[in-house]
Amino acid sequence: LNRIKASGLKLRFCTNETQATRENFVKKLQGLGFDISVDEVTAPAPAACRILKERGLRPHLLVHDDLVPEFAEIDKANPNCVVIGDAAENFTYANLNEAFRLLIGMEKPVLISLGRGRYYKETDGLKLDVGAYMKALEYACDVQAEVVGKPAKMFFESALAEMGVTPQEAIMIGDDIVNDVGGAQQCGMRAVQVRTGKFRSCDENHPYVKPDAYVNNLAEAVDIIFQQL
Amino acid sequence: LNRIKASGLKLRFCTNETQATRENFVKKLQGLGFDISVDEVTAPAPAACRILKERGLRPHLLVHDDLVPEFAEIDKANPNCVVIGDAAENFTYANLNEAFRLLIGMEKPVLISLGRGRYYKETDGLKLDVGAYMKALEYACDVQAEVVGKPAKMFFESALAEMGVTPQEAIMIGDDIVNDVGGAQQCGMRAVQVRTGKFRSCDENHPYVKPDAYVNNLAEAVDIIFQQL
Repeated sequence: LNRIKASGLKLRFCTNETQATRENFVKKLQGLGFDISVDEVTAPAPAACRILKERGLRPHLLVHDDLVPEFAEIDKANPNCVVIGDAAENFTYANLNEAFRLLIGMEKPVLISLGRGRYYKETDGLKLDVGAYMKALEYACDVQAEVVGKPAKMFFESALAEMGVTPQEAIMIGDDIVNDVGGAQQCGMRAVQVRTGKFRSCDENHPYVKPDAYVNNLAEAVDIIFQQL
Repeated sequence: LNRIKASGLKLRFCTNETQATRENFVKKLQGLGFDISVDEVTAPAPAACRILKERGLRPHLLVHDDLVPEFAEIDKANPNCVVIGDAAENFTYANLNEAFRLLIGMEKPVLISLGRGRYYKETDGLKLDVGAYMKALEYACDVQAEVVGKPAKMFFESALAEMGVTPQEAIMIGDDIVNDVGGAQQCGMRAVQVRTGKFRSCDENHPYVKPDAYVNNLAEAVDIIFQQL
């Protein structure tokens, strides 16, 4: 990371984190020793806020308590859309029914989902992710959610716009074959898969996503980028 | 109802009720003045029990507390499938994660759903029905649920078998264009839609279900049946 920053190359951190504000996400990474600041992060909630403002949408939020501050400047009175994130403990029967009633009561229901993840692992076991609850609301209301976050094309386009570069000038480095590599490639970027974190050996035979390169760690990815300059 | 019973015609009540045992369902209808007994009722939970026994399946139940007695005789130790019904208040974040973890941990996940309803109305407003939660688990585990209850073909076949008649000898009377009329017709039965209850005038232009007849009430349906004898 320090080598990239020293080189003057532009850099964005693209995360699907929706259980915390960017502030808290950045603090966590700083605590792990990373040189990172809030304005270098592209995350689903701010991307959703941009959409809400552009389209004059007032959201009902079904999100994690810790994410609510990201929507501080958004008008939420008399909602005309629902925004769903990984709400975790807030995914109660009552909250799901409330979000559903608001959606089904809209002339044209708008459901914005901060991701389409199926599940994730925590120390106390696997948990259903936002995608599962998104599917429940989609089915009940016969609507299609608009997904913000990786692998949505719009999400990568936001990151590129923030850096002021074209897809051809950018390279994505990530461990998730579909969300990181596939999403970036669909946007016209090149993408490298890192064999750490979420990487599984079966990813190398993925039916429809083929990374432009594999690396064993982030340092190797930086080597490749410098070789191409 | 009394005219049908007096005529000697065979009769079954087919319900998708999964918030109560057949005993309680029957008591409610008896209280409204209907001549009905438990052994005249075809309902999703007993149909599911038959499947569980036939296939040696031991269910983890995510159902309404009041439905649990229907599964009294089923072995539920060391579950190898999940049965989901309209669990209402039991659709908690913890219970959904538990059902999900069991399913995803199975070598071949089996999800049996006691219906595919999207939502229903109660005195305090609309509620998400079992179908929405079924979709959430289907998506998270990448499985397809086996649906017991109307409009599943198997459900109507059970009712016919219980009466000992062929589809051609039977007629379905119901107010739900897809679940009652469509389901029965797919099973080779004729079906009449009653213009009461769930009936909506737009049903008469349904894109793919066309009842064999319309009637304004149950008495008219009985008239038609007697005319055809």
